[in-house]
Amino acid sequence: MDNVICDFEQHLLNEYRKKYPDERFIPLHKRNGEPAENQYTALQQDLGAKIVAVYTSYGFSLNLPEIPGACSALKAMNEMNGVEVFICAPPLVSYEFSLKEKCQWIEEYLGEDWVERVIHCLDKTLINAHLIIDDDIRIRGSEKNPPWEHVVFTACHNVNANIGAKKRLNNWTDGSWQRIIEDIKKQIV
Amino acid sequence: MDNVICDFEQHLLNEYRKKYPDERFIPLHKRNGEPAENQYTALQQDLGAKIVAVYTSYGFSLNLPEIPGACSALKAMNEMNGVEVFICAPPLVSYEFSLKEKCQWIEEYLGEDWVERVIHCLDKTLINAHLIIDDDIRIRGSEKNPPWEHVVFTACHNVNANIGAKKRLNNWTDGSWQRIIEDIKKQIV
Repeated sequence: MDNVICDFEQHLLNEYRKKYPDERFIPLHKRNGEPAENQYTALQQDLGAKIVAVYTSYGFSLNLPEIPGACSALKAMNEMNGVEVFICAPPLVSYEFSLKEKCQWIEEYLGEDWVERVIHCLDKTLINAHLIIDDDIRIRGSEKNPPWEHVVFTACHNVNANIGAKKRLNNWTDGSWQRIIEDIKKQIV
Repeated sequence: MDNVICDFEQHLLNEYRKKYPDERFIPLHKRNGEPAENQYTALQQDLGAKIVAVYTSYGFSLNLPEIPGACSALKAMNEMNGVEVFICAPPLVSYEFSLKEKCQWIEEYLGEDWVERVIHCLDKTLINAHLIIDDDIRIRGSEKNPPWEHVVFTACHNVNANIGAKKRLNNWTDGSWQRIIEDIKKQIV
């Protein structure tokens, strides 16, 4: 969900700068793909807790902006013959607001019937799927050979990363996602 | 989680009878494994909404009693060599309270580090695991050949059900769960 359907990184930076206008910050092109908490702590010890306070605050997840075209692409994808779309929304470090707000977000942007398609799961290797679209360039977890193919969704922190043999999806607006889905369908007997 | 780790059915009946002492109810031995909403609606049209109001109410999920021995068995299971335990907690029809309260329950009974082991997922066929312990006698979902073996946890609604070739786990207290785990380990190369 974050950085694939919702623009988590941009929203986090905006809200952080609003709340702590005098503190140092990490511009998007310098984010390294690690959790923001780690990179902010490395920048300055006390900033880790501050960035966490932003993304665990009331309303943060609910007010995430949509990545352009994401929701209409997901709806179209889910209408494709033989395709079922689910949304992986890993819980944040705090479950105080984020779980409920992520469901509210899905309900608002995609409709009530999509709430049943949300999977809150921190370890994505535990998901049984054919394809996963994710901004992390390496998805780690307890299952070393997960069943899915991983397509990297381009985000500020991975735009220049070497992703080896993996495919990239750069956006939801140029229609290139359709080719990715058609390709994976051909691989499934 | 429900009816395997937490005694959902008993708690639901207790709370329903407290809230609606003069209404008809379904004793546990007459529950049929369908969602309570369906069976209560069939009993009397207006009772479906009443039973839903009980299990979606504030505090309901948080106050679920533990099934005896469940949490200590899960901890011991997770300590076994080569075993990792995750808890599947499907969201209820309303996400207003249940998601957060289920996390709070896990934190209270199993500890903070177990919150990361919760998977909120309505469709259990989407979970990539070797073994699933569940009270439903038939787990249906979008994946027709899920990767796990299903062991049926005995509950009021399945105690007399024909479960075919599946194994049963009757309780967490007589130690029989250990044999089930050892058996599945032998099947995994």
